[in-house]
Amino acid sequence: MTSSTGLLPRRFGDVSALVQRTPLSFDAEIDPNWVIGGKPNGGYLLAMLGRSAIEVGAHPDVLAASAHYLRAPDPGPAVIEAEVLRAGRSAGQVRTRMTQGGETCVEALITTGELDRDDPYWQAGLPSFGARAFEDCERLAPVLPDGTRVALMEQIEVRLEPEAEGFTRGVPSGRGELRGWLSLPEGEPFDPVSLLFAVDAFPPATFDIELSGWVPTFELTVYVRALPAPGPVRVLQRAQLIQGRRVDETCFVWDRDGRPVAQSTQLAGIRLG
Amino acid sequence: MTSSTGLLPRRFGDVSALVQRTPLSFDAEIDPNWVIGGKPNGGYLLAMLGRSAIEVGAHPDVLAASAHYLRAPDPGPAVIEAEVLRAGRSAGQVRTRMTQGGETCVEALITTGELDRDDPYWQAGLPSFGARAFEDCERLAPVLPDGTRVALMEQIEVRLEPEAEGFTRGVPSGRGELRGWLSLPEGEPFDPVSLLFAVDAFPPATFDIELSGWVPTFELTVYVRALPAPGPVRVLQRAQLIQGRRVDETCFVWDRDGRPVAQSTQLAGIRLG
Repeated sequence: MTSSTGLLPRRFGDVSALVQRTPLSFDAEIDPNWVIGGKPNGGYLLAMLGRSAIEVGAHPDVLAASAHYLRAPDPGPAVIEAEVLRAGRSAGQVRTRMTQGGETCVEALITTGELDRDDPYWQAGLPSFGARAFEDCERLAPVLPDGTRVALMEQIEVRLEPEAEGFTRGVPSGRGELRGWLSLPEGEPFDPVSLLFAVDAFPPATFDIELSGWVPTFELTVYVRALPAPGPVRVLQRAQLIQGRRVDETCFVWDRDGRPVAQSTQLAGIRLG
Repeated sequence: MTSSTGLLPRRFGDVSALVQRTPLSFDAEIDPNWVIGGKPNGGYLLAMLGRSAIEVGAHPDVLAASAHYLRAPDPGPAVIEAEVLRAGRSAGQVRTRMTQGGETCVEALITTGELDRDDPYWQAGLPSFGARAFEDCERLAPVLPDGTRVALMEQIEVRLEPEAEGFTRGVPSGRGELRGWLSLPEGEPFDPVSLLFAVDAFPPATFDIELSGWVPTFELTVYVRALPAPGPVRVLQRAQLIQGRRVDETCFVWDRDGRPVAQSTQLAGIRLG
């Protein structure tokens, strides 16, 4: 018993599993605990679409995934359809869609290919990851400063550097940056599919600027760059620009050995400005 | 006569114009001069898809566009199809596709909405733009150091800061950053559609690290953040990570008044590493 609901956290591989229905469609079951404010996490939904792309596509890994969010599904059954647009020699493209009750909730284009455990050839354009060890970062509690329960945080372990957790006490740093670590339930190793979730697992980096309500994602693009080593991953979530009631955030993920493994950008609505 | 082909550059509005064929399809004509090494620029193709999304969608502007590139079309006729996925109150989603000879070349998901001339509420997460005035930046010649002619550079005006043009003399700075200005033929003002091109108009920022051949784009995501003021725009093109023969680059665009108006990320193949 590790969560306040009295339920053991479920493994990512289980909550994102698909059951093939026809050659190009799958049944999914959105877990009621992988949610924030009752709505499923956007990266979690994209990971399910990524899994469908791998199933129907000609390549083993997701290289790039771009999701546009039409409406948030509820926890429970959903249908995923995937159509191969091209199956090239070294890369292919798949169009995927999640529907619930006949309505499209998320549509994503996914480029598949094959990843390796490559080290960087040049990485001077990347920001640096946090200096703190996993053990020196505090686990984020599953409750927001305004009292909202975040069920997802009872499933996964988000650990923030002490410099980044000011917002939990109402004292954001103003830098718009959250650095720390992420691990999946039962320490399940990350793979290219769960990395699609990892880039959206941290709280909005805008919490480190000013607390706002719900920050609904319009678009999320993820690039998976290398196969991760087993173990928790380092995460940097950064806000870039709040303008016209929209914010963009970037996320960078490194494996335990410091190898860059995924990065993302997202555009979301925000009630600031 | 301003180009070596003896032809006047054509306006962006003309080379990206669409002719509606059916309620959901358009004829496009890919201009033979908006190319690099004979292949049309990826941002130019995405701008045509953006135009189709605005035509069929319920909103006047592109907010977010994500393109996956399947195969490069040749200059000449192409067909664009656009399907409205959702027409919401403040935003909508459109799926668009460019085909040539019956084969899909580019597919893009586009979120539409309404933009304003908003100033930033918070922008501390953005890099800074170049300090140099338009007149103090030199126009990039339409020939690469290896002698390749870049027809596109006879159409548009890319001006690089002196600090960024080392690669043209075989002396890249190693920073992977190109800063400067961009203007369209005849000084045509930018709009949200041509900003989809602006984020992909500069040379690859990897030229400032090490010269490589063709850098084919797998994926390009663009967020348009505000309506730009008339006049040229400031551009910062940056490489982040070269790993596993792939590179990601980000681009930031500000209007003449310094207002952030667009940003992008792209994943491309590269023969380095």
